Amino acid sequence: MALVACAQFSPIVGAVRANVQRSLELIADAAAQGATVIVLPELASSGYVFNDTAEAAAASEPADGFAVSSWQAAATELGVVIVAGFAETNPGGAPFNSAALLMPDGDPVVYRKVHLWDRERLIFTPGDDLPPVVDTPVGRVGVMICYDLEFPEWVRIAALQGAELICAPVNWPSVDRPIGERPGEVVRVQAGASVNRVAIAACDRSGRERGVEWSSASVIVDADGWPLALTDHAADARRVHGPDETAADRDDAPVTILAEIDLAASQTKLIAEYSDVFADRREDLYGRFAR
Amino acid sequence: MALVACAQFSPIVGAVRANVQRSLELIADAAAQGATVIVLPELASSGYVFNDTAEAAAASEPADGFAVSSWQAAATELGVVIVAGFAETNPGGAPFNSAALLMPDGDPVVYRKVHLWDRERLIFTPGDDLPPVVDTPVGRVGVMICYDLEFPEWVRIAALQGAELICAPVNWPSVDRPIGERPGEVVRVQAGASVNRVAIAACDRSGRERGVEWSSASVIVDADGWPLALTDHAADARRVHGPDETAADRDDAPVTILAEIDLAASQTKLIAEYSDVFADRREDLYGRFAR
Repeated sequence: MALVACAQFSPIVGAVRANVQRSLELIADAAAQGATVIVLPELASSGYVFNDTAEAAAASEPADGFAVSSWQAAATELGVVIVAGFAETNPGGAPFNSAALLMPDGDPVVYRKVHLWDRERLIFTPGDDLPPVVDTPVGRVGVMICYDLEFPEWVRIAALQGAELICAPVNWPSVDRPIGERPGEVVRVQAGASVNRVAIAACDRSGRERGVEWSSASVIVDADGWPLALTDHAADARRVHGPDETAADRDDAPVTILAEIDLAASQTKLIAEYSDVFADRREDLYGRFAR
Repeated sequence: MALVACAQFSPIVGAVRANVQRSLELIADAAAQGATVIVLPELASSGYVFNDTAEAAAASEPADGFAVSSWQAAATELGVVIVAGFAETNPGGAPFNSAALLMPDGDPVVYRKVHLWDRERLIFTPGDDLPPVVDTPVGRVGVMICYDLEFPEWVRIAALQGAELICAPVNWPSVDRPIGERPGEVVRVQAGASVNRVAIAACDRSGRERGVEWSSASVIVDADGWPLALTDHAADARRVHGPDETAADRDDAPVTILAEIDLAASQTKLIAEYSDVFADRREDLYGRFAR
């Protein structure tokens, strides 16, 4: 069993030192509550809404920079696994939208977001590598970032590589949805988990940033796709986002959600006497249609 | 715009004539309400819980048999598209779990379920062809059956072939779920629709059959993944299935749900200024991991 935490907060664009400092406090708090896996938002060190590549580059660091080194030190000191997003310096051009996985006494494993959302393609360089799946002290952990989750192929690849838990830093922009519905991203996380029998922890961010309102909808789901923990904004299906919402409804206060997950449960893909979500795949047919 | 109907009812195992007669009444009712696409359950003509292949074979028919011929005549007479499940005779062995798409003055298009659920593999022969996607008077319609929907690869293939609406006859067995949750199958239909921007109409069955309790959870979702129509059993998130439930909670009465869908909306895959759920796929990478 692993106690998994999503430490949702509101990074300030460009304020790397302050953001990392804030994240370290939240990591220490989560570890004090017993968390052994701690997920932070996408671009936790840098903020998200950059005006251009130059501004993103100025808030970027290499994988041995202040942000990742600080998280690595915290992982070792606290004996926890950390997955956190950062803007990664790219000597060859625009920075990467990256996430690092840190474990005690390990080396950082860095993943570069492959599926860039909307205007990110004007700011960042996309990654070209598969999502890493890493043996950690708590189990096999996969890493991907935000819009990556919306591609079933990507979640499948991580699961087929043996991920028991996918840790996904995200920044989900808030969009209108029908009354009675969770954010669509939460629905897709639930589905991605259940069709693969893999747990997923998606850590969102909160607050407003240069006109973008974030969803504050962090969620942790088990391998059956049921939410074990959600923030109020992910869970409150009756909430309607709109002009009536007050600032207090969507403040910048950090929220950490926690859930105990039996990661070993992800190893069985059986969902009925004869049905196995991996063995039942028809790979002989999936390649027959090429677009 | 198309008015899409799911005509959920409770087929009786082995009673082909009676089941088809019942389905024709429901088709006529739905057409009288203005439906132009009418989906029936999986194995609507035959029932589902067969003891063995011989019993399934006895309830099977070729694609020019009574069930499909009756539905073809109804489609032509009423000017509607019908998608319905039937047990299809297989001269080479165990029958297929099939679905037929019928349109006015057309020839039946038959799909044979590829992903056989649980004990179905002891009863039926799996299909080996991709889901058909057919130009009909109301738009491009794809067909798949029940457990097929749980494989994101399969929904993707139908969508990449241009399906604007996927019609899926299903028989969803009722299983326990947490309080506050829709059936997992409904969640996965929502996600499958939204990641592909394709509408999906899943027609479930009702009733109990040889100890199996069916979900009665038909649902029609739009290309954003939001349910436009659901049965009470799909929608009532607070329902807990269990021993306290009375027979009246889950009767065999047919229920037809209806939703107006703008099928042309499925043609745009744009979900943000620069984000396109098809164009953003990284097919260059998806093949790199072969299990």
